[in-house]
Amino acid sequence: MVAGTFRLVARCPETGARAGELVTGHGVVPTPVFLPVGSQASVKALSGDDVRQAGFAMLLANTYHLYLRPGIATIEKLGGLHRFMSWQGAILTDSGGYQVFSLAGLRRVGDGGITFRSHIDGSTHVLTAEQVIAYQEALGADVAMVLDECVAVDASPGAVRRAVDRTTRWAERCRRVHSRADQQLWAIVQGGLDMGLRQESARALVALDFPGYAIGGLSLGEPKEVTFAVAAATARLLPEDRPRYLMGVGSPEDLVEGVACGLDVFDSALPTRVARNGGLYTPAGRVNILNAACAGVDAPLEPGCDCYTCRTFSTAYLHHLFKARELLAYRLATIHNLRFMARLMEGLRAAIQEGTFARFRAAFQAEYHPSNEAVRREQKRRWLEARRNQGRPGS
Amino acid sequence: MVAGTFRLVARCPETGARAGELVTGHGVVPTPVFLPVGSQASVKALSGDDVRQAGFAMLLANTYHLYLRPGIATIEKLGGLHRFMSWQGAILTDSGGYQVFSLAGLRRVGDGGITFRSHIDGSTHVLTAEQVIAYQEALGADVAMVLDECVAVDASPGAVRRAVDRTTRWAERCRRVHSRADQQLWAIVQGGLDMGLRQESARALVALDFPGYAIGGLSLGEPKEVTFAVAAATARLLPEDRPRYLMGVGSPEDLVEGVACGLDVFDSALPTRVARNGGLYTPAGRVNILNAACAGVDAPLEPGCDCYTCRTFSTAYLHHLFKARELLAYRLATIHNLRFMARLMEGLRAAIQEGTFARFRAAFQAEYHPSNEAVRREQKRRWLEARRNQGRPGS
Repeated sequence: MVAGTFRLVARCPETGARAGELVTGHGVVPTPVFLPVGSQASVKALSGDDVRQAGFAMLLANTYHLYLRPGIATIEKLGGLHRFMSWQGAILTDSGGYQVFSLAGLRRVGDGGITFRSHIDGSTHVLTAEQVIAYQEALGADVAMVLDECVAVDASPGAVRRAVDRTTRWAERCRRVHSRADQQLWAIVQGGLDMGLRQESARALVALDFPGYAIGGLSLGEPKEVTFAVAAATARLLPEDRPRYLMGVGSPEDLVEGVACGLDVFDSALPTRVARNGGLYTPAGRVNILNAACAGVDAPLEPGCDCYTCRTFSTAYLHHLFKARELLAYRLATIHNLRFMARLMEGLRAAIQEGTFARFRAAFQAEYHPSNEAVRREQKRRWLEARRNQGRPGS
Repeated sequence: MVAGTFRLVARCPETGARAGELVTGHGVVPTPVFLPVGSQASVKALSGDDVRQAGFAMLLANTYHLYLRPGIATIEKLGGLHRFMSWQGAILTDSGGYQVFSLAGLRRVGDGGITFRSHIDGSTHVLTAEQVIAYQEALGADVAMVLDECVAVDASPGAVRRAVDRTTRWAERCRRVHSRADQQLWAIVQGGLDMGLRQESARALVALDFPGYAIGGLSLGEPKEVTFAVAAATARLLPEDRPRYLMGVGSPEDLVEGVACGLDVFDSALPTRVARNGGLYTPAGRVNILNAACAGVDAPLEPGCDCYTCRTFSTAYLHHLFKARELLAYRLATIHNLRFMARLMEGLRAAIQEGTFARFRAAFQAEYHPSNEAVRREQKRRWLEARRNQGRPGS
């Protein structure tokens, strides 16, 4: 084990839900925790101060994006990622495996590593297990991730098996070269939707004794019940005393379910992306701020919300900013959605500690109306496809 | 006279420069003052808190833009413009005359008013003298402007004369219907580059006894020496005890000259627009943050600058944000340029009060290298043309 450790604080007697503390060199992070995504060393439209004021102690940045621009060496020379982006909290960096899977054109995966084309200029690059560790150590992340091979949900059984085996071999290689004492290295369980392969993957990685474990390869377009069935079953294969991270999830209702499955850490660009498109979270569900009904509303978007946006501006003003495509719109909407996520996580944690998680979850589900599931899956499928085909940046 | 008054505090013994205080219902504004432009009830990329923290006590909003979107009645119902945009400082609203001149397609100007097509949806509208007062009273501006007719710098002598006469008649009508006691109404001197017509315009408007006077119809593509020759000569035609406002100016070097001409109030979208394009002010001149030379600079853009951006982030990070087209870039750059303008105005005011304005001006001119004049005039000409032809929003 390294400097960072995980402490379990409370457990729900009825579900798998846990409350804990993730100790890092940049502060103690209460779990369950949602990590805002700052792919390019910026949570889109926000400063680090905005993110902190929204209630976050940790965020995620993408090694893939930072490797391509501005370059790892540049950030290292400038004193590391925390200093570069002026963020005093903790940082988890993705290894790049998922980003290459979802963004880059023309990938070739071999045991040596992943060959890919930059989504920015089409140039060819190789990512190896050893390199992603060197990069994340240079960035100075508090939590680094191993290189993994992520496969599509409709990949053949053979392809899923090869990805599991390769991910294990890469995890070993990552662990071998990892040396930074103030950084934790977490492994990533793969295996698609096959619980046999998930078990193999988890068993092999647990044997390597990582300080934290992620579940990758989910939330890629499969039905939600499947996502959580696999996530819950995989979580049970992981050690109790280590943090469990469900990658790329997600929406408010997903986080409640993820926590119920015994997961501690989540990340997703969804809350910030839908904010920039005018989708704003409320306890009743997502509101489209562009709706004409918002035009004259002289009240905060979510009365009682303590975020900067709701404390300062009316729904009518937000509607106007979005209609007029004013840049301020994107910052204010992002602040609200992130604060909504932070408050949700605070509520979940408090409920777990008070032994009332099941009631909290039921109350949430009774009040919050998620976006239509079929529509969402279709959106996700098209979004992944568009990213891949057009090689567009995004997060 | 109305609630608002102007107090002269100091005068430069060598130039026309003045320091004063503009008293409004939303605070006392030290002059000379630069007003950031918030056409659509938002200084682009900033919240009101950002603007205040950059050192501003007053900003400008455009009646034309707000009339088209979200509509004057909407803002009135929501408690007026201050409340709508959550800005506790003072507000000056443009009457719409200049915006129609520069933005709208298919204008027809008659004595009744201006008929124009919306740059948003092509719909037809009419602005009359009486309406612009009603609109600005409904918005609750601290300073309202009369409706004026702005003509191009290459307009025929007959057209300029007609515009002067019409602007005087409209000023009379505006004054007659203006009734809000907590709002000042300022007149606008027109007359193009013809000092005879400027004198006529000024004389007629001064006879009407307005609490403030603006100089319109300048900075429309004519050479800078001409701008300031006309501005200085026109300023001398205006009462000593009233604030003088040079509309649509401008750059840092323009403000120093404008102050030397005896002008007190300025507004321009230039500092915020060039910021969004990566042009950042420093005491030596404008820096293009996209320059490769900025990529590795581990120091604030302007060492010693007390703005949020310079206190928090390196030049290298700003360069990265602009290269990666991160939304945060536009906010941070705008904050810096506005703080630069605010500090410049503070410096000018202090120098006038200390009797060292001429030295301050010489020191500024020795250090600050303005962008090339010919290039700038050509840019301005093309920009005005593009706005007019494409009917694009902008500020």
